[in-house]
Amino acid sequence: MNLYDDDRFFSSYIALRNEANYNDLMETPAMLSLLGAVKGKRIIDLGCGFGSTACVLADMGASYVLGIDISEKMIKKAKAEHQRGSVEYRVMDMVDVSDIEERFDIAYSSLAFHYIEDLGRLLQGIRGILAEGGMLIFSQEHPISTADYEGGFSPDGSSYTFSSYQKEGKRVSRWFVDGVTTYHRTFGTIANTLIQNGYSIDAVLEPKPSDTAMKILPRLIREYEKPSFLIIKSYKK
Amino acid sequence: MNLYDDDRFFSSYIALRNEANYNDLMETPAMLSLLGAVKGKRIIDLGCGFGSTACVLADMGASYVLGIDISEKMIKKAKAEHQRGSVEYRVMDMVDVSDIEERFDIAYSSLAFHYIEDLGRLLQGIRGILAEGGMLIFSQEHPISTADYEGGFSPDGSSYTFSSYQKEGKRVSRWFVDGVTTYHRTFGTIANTLIQNGYSIDAVLEPKPSDTAMKILPRLIREYEKPSFLIIKSYKK
Repeated sequence: MNLYDDDRFFSSYIALRNEANYNDLMETPAMLSLLGAVKGKRIIDLGCGFGSTACVLADMGASYVLGIDISEKMIKKAKAEHQRGSVEYRVMDMVDVSDIEERFDIAYSSLAFHYIEDLGRLLQGIRGILAEGGMLIFSQEHPISTADYEGGFSPDGSSYTFSSYQKEGKRVSRWFVDGVTTYHRTFGTIANTLIQNGYSIDAVLEPKPSDTAMKILPRLIREYEKPSFLIIKSYKK
Repeated sequence: MNLYDDDRFFSSYIALRNEANYNDLMETPAMLSLLGAVKGKRIIDLGCGFGSTACVLADMGASYVLGIDISEKMIKKAKAEHQRGSVEYRVMDMVDVSDIEERFDIAYSSLAFHYIEDLGRLLQGIRGILAEGGMLIFSQEHPISTADYEGGFSPDGSSYTFSSYQKEGKRVSRWFVDGVTTYHRTFGTIANTLIQNGYSIDAVLEPKPSDTAMKILPRLIREYEKPSFLIIKSYKK
């Protein structure tokens, strides 16, 4: 069973997303700022969760949005709460995207790639369903964050301690539940895996919180010491 | 007066470079591994120091190497100790490269860009002296390192503490002498400044020490916790 179908994880995660959270206050606005206009575009949302962004993309004018997620619970919630005429949802592991017959102008993925063990295989699969010159835009946990789950902020949030940056691979940590598995890759590995799989790197964004976001969620000020997220915008070459 | 012409700094730096050091054991091999063949190429070495790499490039078959450095002392030492028929040295601030009339196939710069305040202006200048499709390859202190000179390794070297990653700009620290000025830029800013000034990003390397290098200089093992250097290979688009 995948993490997001664990009952305890799922309810904790939904509760988190119902409060002021990093996704809605910082990550999604940063992604949308890099994405640009989507009017008339066909978009796949890889790891779409409960579909909030898929609907935003549809409302921004995308002609078709296919949201896929490995979690049955997430897709069930998406279908129940985030329906649009131009949005479709499927339960699917994103490493199997090459099974999809449709082709897309944009592949969009929010905070999911760090769950994937084989980034090269994933990027090849995505490349196969992108139209010529199609865009891949994704966010993931920042490599400084994925390096070491033993580390973290000082109690007052003024500094961050980490280790093991060059020791890539599996990390098992606790996030609501024990045994949450992610994969640490250095910035260099992420960039080179894109390049070697036929993508150009067109923008890199380590998002900062807006003043408004920090008023709503004051601990976002810590993002000035150490970024939580890395966003890359690429095109199929 | 620039840092490298300060008598105390200069003699301390030369003493460091005469011992087993990070440059010779890790940074230069990593740069040369990305650089590839240089036979018949015209190369500018930006911030060439005392010319050791300029000579390596000449010995690898470069048809012409122009080494420039802001430090008169460094260029004097380069001319005295690192002469080759195909190598020329000039005292020059790299931000003024657009004054150079020659054109180059490769611009090479080792551990100097973090001294430069205006990276965009520098990159534009370099672009102007690169031939069509020319390569820019540079190393600099890693953004995790330049973020915060108050931070550093734990006493046993097993973790690294930093802050202020998103607070870009001037840093003044002590390295042999007080008042050493460098400029912190995030990974995103470095990448985007390249892209916005007409370069593609073709490889990113955060070098790791070899086993041999760690035998010679055991504290290089700390590089596995936190990288010291960032290397980017780019082409003029």
